[in-house]
Amino acid sequence: MMKMDRDLYYLHKALLLAKKGIYSVNPNPAVGAIVVKNEKIIGMGYHKSPGSAHAEQIALKKAGDNSAGATLYVNLEPCCHHGKTPPCLDLIIEKKIKRVVICQKDPNPLVNGKSIKLLKKNGIDVKLGLLKDEAVSLNKKFNHYHLYNRPYILAKTGMSLDGKIADYRWNSKWITSPASRNDVQKERAMSSSILSTSSTIIKDDSRLNVRKKEYLSKLKIQPPLLILDRKLKIPLSSKIFKDTSRQIYIFSSINTNKKYKSNVILVKTPSNNQKLNLKFIIKYVASQNINNIFVESGPNLLSSLITDNLVDEFLFYIAPKILGNNSKSFNSITHINKLSQKIDYHINYIEQINNDLKMSLTK
Amino acid sequence: MMKMDRDLYYLHKALLLAKKGIYSVNPNPAVGAIVVKNEKIIGMGYHKSPGSAHAEQIALKKAGDNSAGATLYVNLEPCCHHGKTPPCLDLIIEKKIKRVVICQKDPNPLVNGKSIKLLKKNGIDVKLGLLKDEAVSLNKKFNHYHLYNRPYILAKTGMSLDGKIADYRWNSKWITSPASRNDVQKERAMSSSILSTSSTIIKDDSRLNVRKKEYLSKLKIQPPLLILDRKLKIPLSSKIFKDTSRQIYIFSSINTNKKYKSNVILVKTPSNNQKLNLKFIIKYVASQNINNIFVESGPNLLSSLITDNLVDEFLFYIAPKILGNNSKSFNSITHINKLSQKIDYHINYIEQINNDLKMSLTK
Repeated sequence: MMKMDRDLYYLHKALLLAKKGIYSVNPNPAVGAIVVKNEKIIGMGYHKSPGSAHAEQIALKKAGDNSAGATLYVNLEPCCHHGKTPPCLDLIIEKKIKRVVICQKDPNPLVNGKSIKLLKKNGIDVKLGLLKDEAVSLNKKFNHYHLYNRPYILAKTGMSLDGKIADYRWNSKWITSPASRNDVQKERAMSSSILSTSSTIIKDDSRLNVRKKEYLSKLKIQPPLLILDRKLKIPLSSKIFKDTSRQIYIFSSINTNKKYKSNVILVKTPSNNQKLNLKFIIKYVASQNINNIFVESGPNLLSSLITDNLVDEFLFYIAPKILGNNSKSFNSITHINKLSQKIDYHINYIEQINNDLKMSLTK
Repeated sequence: MMKMDRDLYYLHKALLLAKKGIYSVNPNPAVGAIVVKNEKIIGMGYHKSPGSAHAEQIALKKAGDNSAGATLYVNLEPCCHHGKTPPCLDLIIEKKIKRVVICQKDPNPLVNGKSIKLLKKNGIDVKLGLLKDEAVSLNKKFNHYHLYNRPYILAKTGMSLDGKIADYRWNSKWITSPASRNDVQKERAMSSSILSTSSTIIKDDSRLNVRKKEYLSKLKIQPPLLILDRKLKIPLSSKIFKDTSRQIYIFSSINTNKKYKSNVILVKTPSNNQKLNLKFIIKYVASQNINNIFVESGPNLLSSLITDNLVDEFLFYIAPKILGNNSKSFNSITHINKLSQKIDYHINYIEQINNDLKMSLTK
């Protein structure tokens, strides 16, 4: 193999390894690392969850003293700061790694190129940027959080061909297929928080959690729940309050004597025109080290997010059904009176899920 | 090659040949034929347009006397009746073809298995059914017409993500992209008629014809135009009346002194509740030997067709845009009040066209 092909080959393998952690690494990035010497893999590892060993640590530990003179492949720039584990940078130098091949810089301001500089300063050959797009896409939520200092907002809607999410009585069970709903379980499992509103939760007494075994088994914790409940209307008997191990943030604008369990944090939130201030909420969520939000809500919250241009990615699950004009639309937008005012998106990807369509859109 | 592989190989080639005729064969089927002897192609041909030679005739003529003992590959059962050309059956026997491999029976009641029986009776080995699905799909409109004795109805809609086709002033220029509109030109070119309404035509003074050179060059004639114009409201100055070589059928329920050109046929049509009788119209169209209808209309006609379950296939061109609730929906259905009354379809295929989505649905 040519050197370039070899680099691509091992980086691709490192990315596949990294993917094993996507359900449990939040808010950390998914990272895979491979140590190669004389065209043989002598160590590999991936990051499983916050607090556990970094991918580079696992791979280097496996390689042992054999690491001297080897090449390390890793999809993200190694860390140089003391977090829950000591810096990987020190270990790489200590193990006498000769060459490090990296897909992307770590956008975390604590790193952001510093490790690369220090590796070079220590005489280690560094190659940066191969398979960068794939790596950036794998950790899009983590990258977004550090680049823009706010969580990546992914909004999900399950709807009919004519954009309806329920009949006029708000019955929505079910428009999309079980396969699509299973895919939503996967998306929830990959999220570091789920945002919804009191009306959505009260309507169906939804739990908005991960229940499918195949994803549940890979999760460390249920993604925290963020609820907009301006007047604290959700009854304490609701299903969401049954699981007291799950972190729940309730955003409201009133004071209360209601006795919530200790897993519930009430966040006093400013409001205007009877609407909670979304920008305040997003800022608060960011301060909690939550790097992404999966939005599952009705038309009102979604329309506010759309109008304020706060959604980074949409997931539309479209069932090939017609519900007609008496049914409820996924959005409640009424300010568009001219075609030129339409809101445009780009197709990120489309995927057929049994007899439904999954469509990812970005601005 | 094994015999089976060989048969698939040549039939696949015959299908590709057949496809060359799709823009000009209407109302005939698209047919390709290949004559093979000692693993060599000695003749091939495809049907171009009504009145021109059949695929088998062209292929056998090219093969000449060499045909004796050869195999004929053809996607549709050869004809045994005198139409605009003599029966292919006689020629196959005369040319001493030894074996005929056919994808599907001709559903035309004038043939419908008769040729196969007669070939066998004449000692010719017949193999039927290989690549049948592909062949049936290629001639789905022709097959449908003969199987059900009515035209195949394909309804097209270009819309936003929320199912809107225009702003509240009915401005619809443009929701979908130029690439999608180009695809509509292709679909028009493959149709044997285009159906619309007076309101759609008056609104934009549309011509509803094929204009793109790449398709126009392959057409024999513009697809006839079928217009529902109950009260004969379309002005004689409209663009559709400029091309006097194009057949136009106007369905109305009134008498008139209006002077239409000779290419316009007025069809007096019964109506109920101020709506023209669609079943009458479809029957009439069938009687004109028109085997398919491409519907390009607004929400009212489309909703009637949906409600009466008259659409065989839908083509939705979906632009990833939001137009909001003040805009016009592709359907005007208001009889659905319960989720259980939703109208379900199956995804036939999906295709991304630049930044739009094309979705084919069937019942």
